[in-house]
Amino acid sequence: MPERLSPHHDGSPLHVSTQAPALGEVVRVRLRVPDTFGPLRWVGTRSNPNREPRFDEAVRLPDGGTGAPGAAGVADGWQWWEAAVEVENPVHGYRWLLVGGDGRQHWLNQAGLSSVEVRDHDDFRLVAHAPAPEWAASSVMYQVFPDRFAKSDAAPFERLREETKLPDWAIPAEWTDQLDPVPPGRSAQFYGGDLDGVREHLDHLEAIGINLLYLTPFFPARSNHRYDASTFDHVDPLLGGDEALVRLVEAAHARGIRVIGDLTSNHSGDAHEWFRAAQADPAAPERAFYYLHDDGTYESWLGVPSLPKFDWKSRELRRRFIDGPDSVVARFLAPPFNLDGWRIDVANMTGRLGDEDLNEQVRLTIRATMLDVNADTILLGESTNDAASDFQGDAWHGAMTYTPLTRPLWSWLQQPGSPAGGGIGFALARVPTFTGGEFVAAHQRFAAGFPWRTRVATMNALDTHDTPRFATSALPGTVPVAFGLAVTLPGIPVVWAGDEFGLTGIDGEASRTPIPWGSEGSADVAPVLETYRSLVALRRAHPVLATGGIRWLAVGDDAVAFVRESAEETLLVFAARAASTLSFETAALPLGSALSARSDAAAVAFGDAGLATSDGSTTLSATGPSFAGWVLPGVSTPAW
Amino acid sequence: MPERLSPHHDGSPLHVSTQAPALGEVVRVRLRVPDTFGPLRWVGTRSNPNREPRFDEAVRLPDGGTGAPGAAGVADGWQWWEAAVEVENPVHGYRWLLVGGDGRQHWLNQAGLSSVEVRDHDDFRLVAHAPAPEWAASSVMYQVFPDRFAKSDAAPFERLREETKLPDWAIPAEWTDQLDPVPPGRSAQFYGGDLDGVREHLDHLEAIGINLLYLTPFFPARSNHRYDASTFDHVDPLLGGDEALVRLVEAAHARGIRVIGDLTSNHSGDAHEWFRAAQADPAAPERAFYYLHDDGTYESWLGVPSLPKFDWKSRELRRRFIDGPDSVVARFLAPPFNLDGWRIDVANMTGRLGDEDLNEQVRLTIRATMLDVNADTILLGESTNDAASDFQGDAWHGAMTYTPLTRPLWSWLQQPGSPAGGGIGFALARVPTFTGGEFVAAHQRFAAGFPWRTRVATMNALDTHDTPRFATSALPGTVPVAFGLAVTLPGIPVVWAGDEFGLTGIDGEASRTPIPWGSEGSADVAPVLETYRSLVALRRAHPVLATGGIRWLAVGDDAVAFVRESAEETLLVFAARAASTLSFETAALPLGSALSARSDAAAVAFGDAGLATSDGSTTLSATGPSFAGWVLPGVSTPAW
Repeated sequence: MPERLSPHHDGSPLHVSTQAPALGEVVRVRLRVPDTFGPLRWVGTRSNPNREPRFDEAVRLPDGGTGAPGAAGVADGWQWWEAAVEVENPVHGYRWLLVGGDGRQHWLNQAGLSSVEVRDHDDFRLVAHAPAPEWAASSVMYQVFPDRFAKSDAAPFERLREETKLPDWAIPAEWTDQLDPVPPGRSAQFYGGDLDGVREHLDHLEAIGINLLYLTPFFPARSNHRYDASTFDHVDPLLGGDEALVRLVEAAHARGIRVIGDLTSNHSGDAHEWFRAAQADPAAPERAFYYLHDDGTYESWLGVPSLPKFDWKSRELRRRFIDGPDSVVARFLAPPFNLDGWRIDVANMTGRLGDEDLNEQVRLTIRATMLDVNADTILLGESTNDAASDFQGDAWHGAMTYTPLTRPLWSWLQQPGSPAGGGIGFALARVPTFTGGEFVAAHQRFAAGFPWRTRVATMNALDTHDTPRFATSALPGTVPVAFGLAVTLPGIPVVWAGDEFGLTGIDGEASRTPIPWGSEGSADVAPVLETYRSLVALRRAHPVLATGGIRWLAVGDDAVAFVRESAEETLLVFAARAASTLSFETAALPLGSALSARSDAAAVAFGDAGLATSDGSTTLSATGPSFAGWVLPGVSTPAW
Repeated sequence: MPERLSPHHDGSPLHVSTQAPALGEVVRVRLRVPDTFGPLRWVGTRSNPNREPRFDEAVRLPDGGTGAPGAAGVADGWQWWEAAVEVENPVHGYRWLLVGGDGRQHWLNQAGLSSVEVRDHDDFRLVAHAPAPEWAASSVMYQVFPDRFAKSDAAPFERLREETKLPDWAIPAEWTDQLDPVPPGRSAQFYGGDLDGVREHLDHLEAIGINLLYLTPFFPARSNHRYDASTFDHVDPLLGGDEALVRLVEAAHARGIRVIGDLTSNHSGDAHEWFRAAQADPAAPERAFYYLHDDGTYESWLGVPSLPKFDWKSRELRRRFIDGPDSVVARFLAPPFNLDGWRIDVANMTGRLGDEDLNEQVRLTIRATMLDVNADTILLGESTNDAASDFQGDAWHGAMTYTPLTRPLWSWLQQPGSPAGGGIGFALARVPTFTGGEFVAAHQRFAAGFPWRTRVATMNALDTHDTPRFATSALPGTVPVAFGLAVTLPGIPVVWAGDEFGLTGIDGEASRTPIPWGSEGSADVAPVLETYRSLVALRRAHPVLATGGIRWLAVGDDAVAFVRESAEETLLVFAARAASTLSFETAALPLGSALSARSDAAAVAFGDAGLATSDGSTTLSATGPSFAGWVLPGVSTPAW
């Protein structure tokens, strides 16, 4: 039995007349209903302005709105309905209601269809806050951990080492040394990568197709990860200092690659000049920057004393760090640095302690400052679990989170019993094993919490500097499946530097391996690099993968299929972890009739899975782990 | 096949060591797992303090914790597990995680069990804000619309009528006149009920078993409903003035009946002295109380000009109305009035307009003022749809809402195609028809958004002054089923005055019928009165119905069954809309083994449905619409 077609809406341009409405603007939203759905007594939206429901009736577009030949009011088997929704609040939720001829109610929200009334948190949303820059959704991100990426010819680390000016805590390592996962080596082992090293390898990023570089912290600190900054005033001399950052950003921009930095809004290091000043003098203005108790103890990130927690009640802290043109947030976005945005560390805990919650104030202030200095910048927040409540579009453009994609993907594609180690956020650090149905259910459950535009600017990471590497214990042959999903599901695909070399690592520490430069052509590495290169190319060749809608077609234990859709084109995606077949109604695809006649009407975009049509049903098949895509025409839809 | 037992937790005293924890307190929480569930590798809680997950491992209580004979660590077929959870935020969410011997993860939150990770909004919650008064959950509420309840012997209305001092807008009606549903009669038709009239009928309330009286507004206004107050300074002389309210509250208190009033925090009437002052003089302090535009227009409730919306940015408005001992909120809780709390009208929209949202500030201020003048008071907020986000326990103790119970109950028990008219909030004013499964799904979906203590203080109304009356087109014989559920599901049962007389009304206007005093003994009315009296008696005789946990046992299209549970007793509840049977494992009940031997081990508490046990399965049966309850022993559980 092929899966049946269902009414569909999402926040993409195919279904919503504007991605950046103003408060008070009337936005037109469209619902597609399969012509086979049955009679409808009423179709429209239910909004909730000022928390009081309002219903707006939809009208059915004539001739499917396209003027194309076919049954009256049907285009490619779909009825199109349109409603006008006034955006009354900055985050304006809405859902669809379809009342059948039998009086049954069908609610459609971001979690799917329900015959029972639904709650507000899964509503579709129109967001009148300032939007993310246009380039956000079409970014492909490359994450660099500076100490482990590359040493430049200038090699400031070696120079300082020769001058015996390395920091007292640093344990120098050679580039090919094994990682030491045990403290103090864990955070003190120092390989000496630097920012000019990144600059000297921009060819590599360009070859992969990267257009957004994310640098983990570059401020001086007392660790190799630098999340314990000792100042936010300048770039760590060990990384080449301010000038190296300026050179890197300039060189990246020349290649069309944007660059973002990483700020810790939750804490600083205990060696931070502010914290030292606070400890030294109870009368110091910095005293109010932290939660320092009379007995000398203080609040810190998860009780780790080297990471004292900021107290955002302090206006002076805000002024120095996040508020206004002289703040740290602003200074690195302005010349000469010209960063293109920030990723904010531990955004979820920022400003939260006991009965205090200043998180909203902090994130709004950060973004307001950014808008003033350069509106064409991106702001991403780390919130690795259920991020939805903070990510409604008021400040964070997207989330660095592991719930909608990373963990579900691991559960579907990792070998059963795989250890997850620290960082990825699985309960008890064990990876539960999912069917394809559970993978999709988890993905949809968490994605449903985001406005569409937050969803397309959220990081689709298989892994990061904080997690084990995906390849470590993936089911054989599934790395292309996983990264294929990262580039085809809504969100910003992320390459954690080294993944494209096939590196492994059993936890967030072991995954910070120095990049094995020179191995690119080896028999082990070359095919992996080619997988990443070709999948990024797929992503960048098809804008529909950045901003198009998504509709799931079929889900099995071992395979899933969906389309990304726009008026310009459709990309059919099939991902399988094992030999499997999936079937769905051919009418689910544009030009289904043409496809029924000739299945080569779908052009292969990637992979080599099977696509066959017969009797109104399309079957996708794989003989093993497989990731495949086909290009189809865009969706027949009237202009707005 | 009987329904299988499932792991269970709820916020009741059986499962949580305190109902009113302090911030920083370590609370013990308990999970029950059927001994048949299978091997468990790990059991514990996942909290989310400051939005970062924390896991606390549970320990299995020995001997089921009871010391009773039986298999090791099992009491009545259940394993009991206990975890210690520190309350780190004022609203501290937690969920359970059970990891099976096969490594499968089972998440348990307020929405039920899931193999896929769950979102935060359905977490169980520990709330460190000031709790509701102890009597909240054990209240049975009676709602009175003063103009329609009773005319006193003093009859201020008649006196003013004789003196031709009735308001210019009032259209006097005789008590037995038909309601006029068409404007101006709709809101101007005036029957002349008054507060002494309520006082003179306290016998009636006492006979039903009422212990909480909710009066819709008693301030002077320009309508019969008085939601358009012209002052908050004193009680409407048409109702007998301040003295009548003082007399009523004194008399009610003497009978153990508490009294709450009704405030409109979203708007006043356009004849309000503040609004008149604001309109008359742009320099008046009251100008800032409303959203008055330069062209003379102003914001109002849903665009109704007689109800201008308050602008809560005004500190002076807050001072006069809600903030501090001289405010309206405070004054009527203090002597000589001594009201026991407030129901707040349109709480959901209060303080919300466009990009402004002062709702949290307003509700926190109202409650802070109440705590100062008399902490032993209740604060209920009207929020008739998804109320959860505002009702996390910071101010509102409970909701006047229609989503968890009212609408699902109508959908299950109204005649198909029944019109719902305005007020009850059904989409398009049509009542969709539900199965029992959909009724329970909707109930659980919306109840899952509340902390437990909000849930037990939320109004279980079949109908109100704003809705059609439930009896109007209920399936024959289902009024006892509906009110039976209202008194046995968690929440405050509500009798909308007149329901106990069998009154009907097709919308919120038509349901404001004057009470037909004198008909109590009639053949039509007496059985209805007896239904209400006996079901309230059931509620009040069994404290477990106020504060006990709830566990669903079986759900069918036409019947549902659950238990309310405490250490003291268990009440088994069966509600059927038609002839039906339901089966579940007898082990679901305390002393299941005794029950298997003698089904009369369950004492009938209400109704006459069938209860039979055989082969480890219990079957409940009804030959038609039925509401029944049985008393069983309390749950075997260790003391805290």
